[in-house]
Amino acid sequence: MKEKLTLMIPGPTPVPERVLKALGRHPIGHRTQEFQDIVENTTELLKWLHQTSEDVLAITGSGTAAMEAGIINTLSQGDKVICGENGKFGERWVKVAKAYGLNVQIVKADWGKPLDSLEFKKLLEQDKDIRAVIVTHSETSTGVINDLKAISHYVKDHKQALMIADCVTSLGACNVPMDEWGIDVLASGSQKGYMIPPGLSFVAMSKKAWVANSISKLPKFYLDLKLYKKTADKNSNPFTPSVNLYFALEEALKMMKEEGLESIFKRHEIYKKATQEAMQSIGLPLFAEKDYGSPSITAIAPKNIDAEVIRKNVKNNFDILLAGGQDDLKGKIFRIGHLGFVNERDIIAAIGSIEATLDQLGVATKPVGTGVGIASKILMENK
Amino acid sequence: MKEKLTLMIPGPTPVPERVLKALGRHPIGHRTQEFQDIVENTTELLKWLHQTSEDVLAITGSGTAAMEAGIINTLSQGDKVICGENGKFGERWVKVAKAYGLNVQIVKADWGKPLDSLEFKKLLEQDKDIRAVIVTHSETSTGVINDLKAISHYVKDHKQALMIADCVTSLGACNVPMDEWGIDVLASGSQKGYMIPPGLSFVAMSKKAWVANSISKLPKFYLDLKLYKKTADKNSNPFTPSVNLYFALEEALKMMKEEGLESIFKRHEIYKKATQEAMQSIGLPLFAEKDYGSPSITAIAPKNIDAEVIRKNVKNNFDILLAGGQDDLKGKIFRIGHLGFVNERDIIAAIGSIEATLDQLGVATKPVGTGVGIASKILMENK
Repeated sequence: MKEKLTLMIPGPTPVPERVLKALGRHPIGHRTQEFQDIVENTTELLKWLHQTSEDVLAITGSGTAAMEAGIINTLSQGDKVICGENGKFGERWVKVAKAYGLNVQIVKADWGKPLDSLEFKKLLEQDKDIRAVIVTHSETSTGVINDLKAISHYVKDHKQALMIADCVTSLGACNVPMDEWGIDVLASGSQKGYMIPPGLSFVAMSKKAWVANSISKLPKFYLDLKLYKKTADKNSNPFTPSVNLYFALEEALKMMKEEGLESIFKRHEIYKKATQEAMQSIGLPLFAEKDYGSPSITAIAPKNIDAEVIRKNVKNNFDILLAGGQDDLKGKIFRIGHLGFVNERDIIAAIGSIEATLDQLGVATKPVGTGVGIASKILMENK
Repeated sequence: MKEKLTLMIPGPTPVPERVLKALGRHPIGHRTQEFQDIVENTTELLKWLHQTSEDVLAITGSGTAAMEAGIINTLSQGDKVICGENGKFGERWVKVAKAYGLNVQIVKADWGKPLDSLEFKKLLEQDKDIRAVIVTHSETSTGVINDLKAISHYVKDHKQALMIADCVTSLGACNVPMDEWGIDVLASGSQKGYMIPPGLSFVAMSKKAWVANSISKLPKFYLDLKLYKKTADKNSNPFTPSVNLYFALEEALKMMKEEGLESIFKRHEIYKKATQEAMQSIGLPLFAEKDYGSPSITAIAPKNIDAEVIRKNVKNNFDILLAGGQDDLKGKIFRIGHLGFVNERDIIAAIGSIEATLDQLGVATKPVGTGVGIASKILMENK
């Protein structure tokens, strides 16, 4: 039976029916009180989700647009920045920084390993002139979570530098208390923990980031956050926003509020644990070590078989879409997304389907059901 | 009876049920064959709509993002450009050009009047160093259509300069044959003639524009069209695209193809004529003269009464949302959108509602129904 797709990729993530219904409404005028009410309401809920008292601005664009906006609205050509790079998204922020003529120092880790926060500490202590540290919290390409809390702490100690964080696949999956951790620029995207389709992205900026903005000189217009801030104060947008995605956003944020942050974080933590343990129990190695596995995505590096073969067979047999490896990792890993609108049944289904597929391919090392047994125990214990 | 809104603003425009249904589908993975098929199909239809053999690239963003992309991907700091400015959008492209350090010469006309194409001719003949001419085809803020065909012709004669055109409210409403007119950069937005909600925008570039791109040096990343072109060749996107708006786009473009370009253009022309004649027949002056009225929007400048009062009463009494005047024109004009998914009934309803509202406000100079009579005659003659 086809046409009953389940998305278990790190975005787009599955969208609840309530949210799809909201999305499919007839649009309204974006310069009306009715729409301003939606902007006001969603802004309050976004602040709750970000655990911040700062503004959270919405941009019609992908998560990359939000990160780029954060970078180019706070920095100027020649500014010294440190970029963490241990995956495709870390690489991307290096590219963005270079495209705008920033002076980039890179802290690297192998793909699949976390960034070493002490390296940031050392570099920050050595150079008082650093203007920003740019880090990907959950590295979607490898399933690694970086220690944003620790890195933010060192950035705070530096005084001048801004902490610019890509929280695209961490926000709404694990605890990212913006104000408490001292994150100055926090970027995220709609098709992730938010449980709505792609097309909206979000950037929140601290007071320190707005001060940096006042002396930042990089050219921009569509991504000029001053324009967004000015209109946000009037519950409006500088350019025609993605009205229908706002309808979806409002509904999805309401659902998140109903569930509560603690419950959302716990759910992702348990799904991660169940997925990790189940995969290990059937002899599939985790690409990122357990302790720094992302709450949103678990990457698997199977031995003796092309990861794409597993991925494609899971899709063909069970209509579950897993993610492949990107760039050099293509064929070496597959990734199981457990982010957003995911429940216990989805985890069981994914694990059972992978087990059955390994068996079909003749590469199973454990009886089918072993992984499901392990996962279900973890899921049930945490009910 | 409320909650039966009709949008008669110049965007968002009404969305057909078929398109809303497509929009409200569960998202799919954007790196799948199924999605690539949609990109391939929509690209072909976009080329048909643009009357071009060039690529048409889709950006998740507003029409401003597409225009900005066109400007910053073909020019460099200090480049001499001529911007036409006879309304809010002309003003905006001047701001964009200045934000990127272009050397801007402005050709102005009063708001409500068209740009004088001969001024462009003169300036282009005087200066062989001009790199681009930036013009808004249909100036949404005033309801004026500029003579893009003539201006493009003078730009072509210049040889070096590129014709960069904002066709946001003209494409899909009147004839804009990109290749035939020699438009080098053509920007448009989803929430207009395309009949889908806001959030996607489009930019098509000629071979000459791509040559200019190869020497253009303005910094960019999210709006770097090279990245879009590279992925477009593989029916993909550089960043996660607005998947659900693509579903809507595909459905809406199919509808447009079914209707045919000639029929779409004729429909808009007749609605414009019916609206213009009806408004004049009841003593409401047109803000833009008939001969250069936009096919998408008719601006009305009522005497002796605040335009906002009419607009608000039409909304309250009939749930038709008309657009107000922007900036200095607030209270001086209201604007009737007749763009996209609009039919004869909508035109009759809008005119009748305006007539009834004028009567209620005690400012009618003709019996209610006069305008409807004039409009219906024009509509029926053209059936």
